[in-house]
Amino acid sequence: MKIEYTLFHKDKKTNARYGEIKTNYGTYETPIFMPVGTQATVKTLSPEEIKQMHAGIILSNTYHLWLRPGADIVKKAGGLHKFINYDGPILTDSGGFQVFSLAKPKDISEEGVEFKSHINGDKLFLTPEKSIEIQNKLDSDIAMCFDECPPYPVTHEYMQKSVERTIRWAKRCKEAHKNSNQSLFGIVQGGEFADLRKYSAEETVKIDFDGYSIGGTSVGEDKNTMYKMIDYAVKYLPSNKARYLMGVGEPTDILEGVERGIDMFDCVLPTRLARHGHAFTRMGKINLKNAKYKEDFSPIDNSCDCYACQNYTKAYIRHLIVAKETFGQRLISIHNLRFLIKLTEEIRQAIKEDRFLEYKTNFLDKYR
Amino acid sequence: MKIEYTLFHKDKKTNARYGEIKTNYGTYETPIFMPVGTQATVKTLSPEEIKQMHAGIILSNTYHLWLRPGADIVKKAGGLHKFINYDGPILTDSGGFQVFSLAKPKDISEEGVEFKSHINGDKLFLTPEKSIEIQNKLDSDIAMCFDECPPYPVTHEYMQKSVERTIRWAKRCKEAHKNSNQSLFGIVQGGEFADLRKYSAEETVKIDFDGYSIGGTSVGEDKNTMYKMIDYAVKYLPSNKARYLMGVGEPTDILEGVERGIDMFDCVLPTRLARHGHAFTRMGKINLKNAKYKEDFSPIDNSCDCYACQNYTKAYIRHLIVAKETFGQRLISIHNLRFLIKLTEEIRQAIKEDRFLEYKTNFLDKYR
Repeated sequence: MKIEYTLFHKDKKTNARYGEIKTNYGTYETPIFMPVGTQATVKTLSPEEIKQMHAGIILSNTYHLWLRPGADIVKKAGGLHKFINYDGPILTDSGGFQVFSLAKPKDISEEGVEFKSHINGDKLFLTPEKSIEIQNKLDSDIAMCFDECPPYPVTHEYMQKSVERTIRWAKRCKEAHKNSNQSLFGIVQGGEFADLRKYSAEETVKIDFDGYSIGGTSVGEDKNTMYKMIDYAVKYLPSNKARYLMGVGEPTDILEGVERGIDMFDCVLPTRLARHGHAFTRMGKINLKNAKYKEDFSPIDNSCDCYACQNYTKAYIRHLIVAKETFGQRLISIHNLRFLIKLTEEIRQAIKEDRFLEYKTNFLDKYR
Repeated sequence: MKIEYTLFHKDKKTNARYGEIKTNYGTYETPIFMPVGTQATVKTLSPEEIKQMHAGIILSNTYHLWLRPGADIVKKAGGLHKFINYDGPILTDSGGFQVFSLAKPKDISEEGVEFKSHINGDKLFLTPEKSIEIQNKLDSDIAMCFDECPPYPVTHEYMQKSVERTIRWAKRCKEAHKNSNQSLFGIVQGGEFADLRKYSAEETVKIDFDGYSIGGTSVGEDKNTMYKMIDYAVKYLPSNKARYLMGVGEPTDILEGVERGIDMFDCVLPTRLARHGHAFTRMGKINLKNAKYKEDFSPIDNSCDCYACQNYTKAYIRHLIVAKETFGQRLISIHNLRFLIKLTEEIRQAIKEDRFLEYKTNFLDKYR
């Protein structure tokens, strides 16, 4: 079965929307934040911990899984859910973003992208067909089209050619897609150019995908440009399909995205921050390595219902991080992920009650 | 309350003994293997995971906790149990072993040991009184006397002087000990010299401790010498007190120790092996990084009831270890610790049924 998006309620004052996505692995309300499990694991965490924080969908990276352990091994294991022992829905990206950011492509042609493995330098070639073949084998619930992620900024001329090619690639992806239990999302590109975002959105929607994602918004541009990119694209997306803003996880950006009509978010930020001892709180991010937490026997966030905040003090977590003990990273990861998931829970409630803007203002008043 | 050891049953053919230790945090059967939480955490694991593997007592290191976060912070947190959120019993070592192995002492005098912190090179001074003061503050259930751990080999003359000093230090430890909820164990030293082990055991027992430990058996000597050291010491220890063989965790050595009358073991081996991708099985240790496990979709050990073996395949754990994902280390740590704890469960059952030697032979026939 493909996923099914249902729009329950649209906020009266903004484009914020409350809905749900039905998948083969359960039904989840939107807007939603998806934890990222790059290498077939959300760093340091177990599937049970992911469930306990009420995560709906998690994301895993096609590029990484292709290189290690390889798509065939995951297929032989019975697909990604079985391989990692997670019975919730999983979204895989196309590998495009990693190829362009991590592997530094050697050559982009109409056929695909030649690049070097970031692990061993092997010459590799990724095409729309190959990306879909890998994702079909991974058997994720949602696959993404293979797109070009141009750097920022590029000229209008370059971006236009890139968008046109990404549209041709999207058609090839849909053509190549063979997994009837997997949905396929198209990706809107076009950088900061309103006309190209419109063109990309309209042409991608014409191909008809199970959902749409807005790409290229987190490649180093300023926040206002990012929000404009969403505005430029989202109005051309059908309201009966889910909308996914890729790679976005700052609380402020989630709120701005929701306000503009986004349903799904993902980002490595919560787990990456955890690695460095940084934790989300209602007052903003704090650095637990700071000496002032040495004797602070209160939880990271008094209002938080996560396992870390229910059981551990800042002083203990600080000790673990300073002593480079991974249990510290694990506790902050749990907290940071739960923080964003809770944020989307509260956002949903606010939309239901037509008070999204009020909620956003209240949240941002405290959060610095 | 101090701990209470009760001897239930002595094996008919060997010195193996089945008993229990009553503590302020529950009652636990012996022989027992204790997971090591060096820096106030059993590496990568939560207290719930430690409980789930039926660990009885865990061990934490006074030297490490003294340096980071500091004994006063742990005391302010309400003691080590509260600090780390573990409501099972905890044993702390004296810091002696780390000072002699990790910090390389600059000067050993009658008063104590001067050494440099392995973290920042700070000059530090540890004495019997200081070690006990720290352990009193940590508020562990069992504290250890501060002893000298001489390198191996040393001359009989050096060892004799060292043993005599360790006995004087043991008296000072008992004198300094002020925590009525904490038990204090004496440590028998004496290297491979039968007369010194006898002397050390008899003199230490005269001081009268809540239990006795045999030290200096894992400092690089061959296995037979290690077993002889146990033989030399254990016969002078009272049968109504628990006996603890420090730093020993190889399955073979646990079996040999139990046969000689040991009740408690600890070792960093299970978690250290896990870090390198090595796992215990009934057939011996395996290296999960080995390419032959790439497509092995069976658990580490079919007969194992641990969380890792119940839920994950070798292929997945291998992927995690190769990709340097700590969830892999976490899964193997759970398995390796459960393996040794299960071993002691089976040992206890075998002793109860007077078939310890048969169990040992059967186990070692398969385990290579």
